[in-house]
Amino acid sequence: MDETPGSVGTTASLSLRLGQAFFSSASLLFMSVGVEFYSYTAFCFLVTIMGLVIPWSCTLAMVDIYSLFAGCPLRLPRVMVIVVIGDWVLSVLSLAAACASASVIDLLIHIDGPYCPTKICGRYQLSAAMAFLSWFLTAASSLLNLWLVASW
Amino acid sequence: MDETPGSVGTTASLSLRLGQAFFSSASLLFMSVGVEFYSYTAFCFLVTIMGLVIPWSCTLAMVDIYSLFAGCPLRLPRVMVIVVIGDWVLSVLSLAAACASASVIDLLIHIDGPYCPTKICGRYQLSAAMAFLSWFLTAASSLLNLWLVASW
Repeated sequence: MDETPGSVGTTASLSLRLGQAFFSSASLLFMSVGVEFYSYTAFCFLVTIMGLVIPWSCTLAMVDIYSLFAGCPLRLPRVMVIVVIGDWVLSVLSLAAACASASVIDLLIHIDGPYCPTKICGRYQLSAAMAFLSWFLTAASSLLNLWLVASW
Repeated sequence: MDETPGSVGTTASLSLRLGQAFFSSASLLFMSVGVEFYSYTAFCFLVTIMGLVIPWSCTLAMVDIYSLFAGCPLRLPRVMVIVVIGDWVLSVLSLAAACASASVIDLLIHIDGPYCPTKICGRYQLSAAMAFLSWFLTAASSLLNLWLVASW
């Protein structure tokens, strides 16, 4: 079995997982602390998905740390298939949530009315940007692990 | 080389391509004919992306038809890599456009004001639904071709 960079049990994978956990936490915090996000469906969706990405990434980061310390990557075929499917589903949902939020923010800025004060809109935008970064890292993990599974 | 169902040059691939072309054309028509879609960034984005998916799918459908009639699949490694990357980029962009449009439509329905008469909103919703179906087929093509390339 060749060593695909970024697959489970490598330092590259650990960095990707930590990055996902960091950016999804940042997105969740920017969206939820002190902002009335629950008025908009897209923002609730973003918060839900980011709340799913954080435990997933943290769990797999712990698996990576264990593999690195134990020196033997945990690469049972069934586990890898679950990881690939989970990553793929979460990356699709993260992208969907990030795009939905970004388009709603864009619309709120352009519609006249009391929908989006500048300060709060800035935080919404930061949250959507963090969600895009989290999506990017999840998609990278998903593709690298899929490549590993397919090349067996 | 094993015969992965859905990879370039099979009948499954041809059906996926025709489905993509059909759903993206339907999405484009529902969005653009007689509706003022250019007032909203998300809808312009959807129209642009569907306008890219149609020629891409039609070209690859013709490649599939040629391969089926000639009896020898066109599977040069470089061409396959381009097909996989193109499919992946277009599936990400289709999903982004579909989600952005769906969330904007949801917001327009819930905001009071003259933004979305019922008849026009129904067409927007149909267009977003067609874009989701087109995304689903593009993602399937992308994953099946990636699997073929990775298993070489």
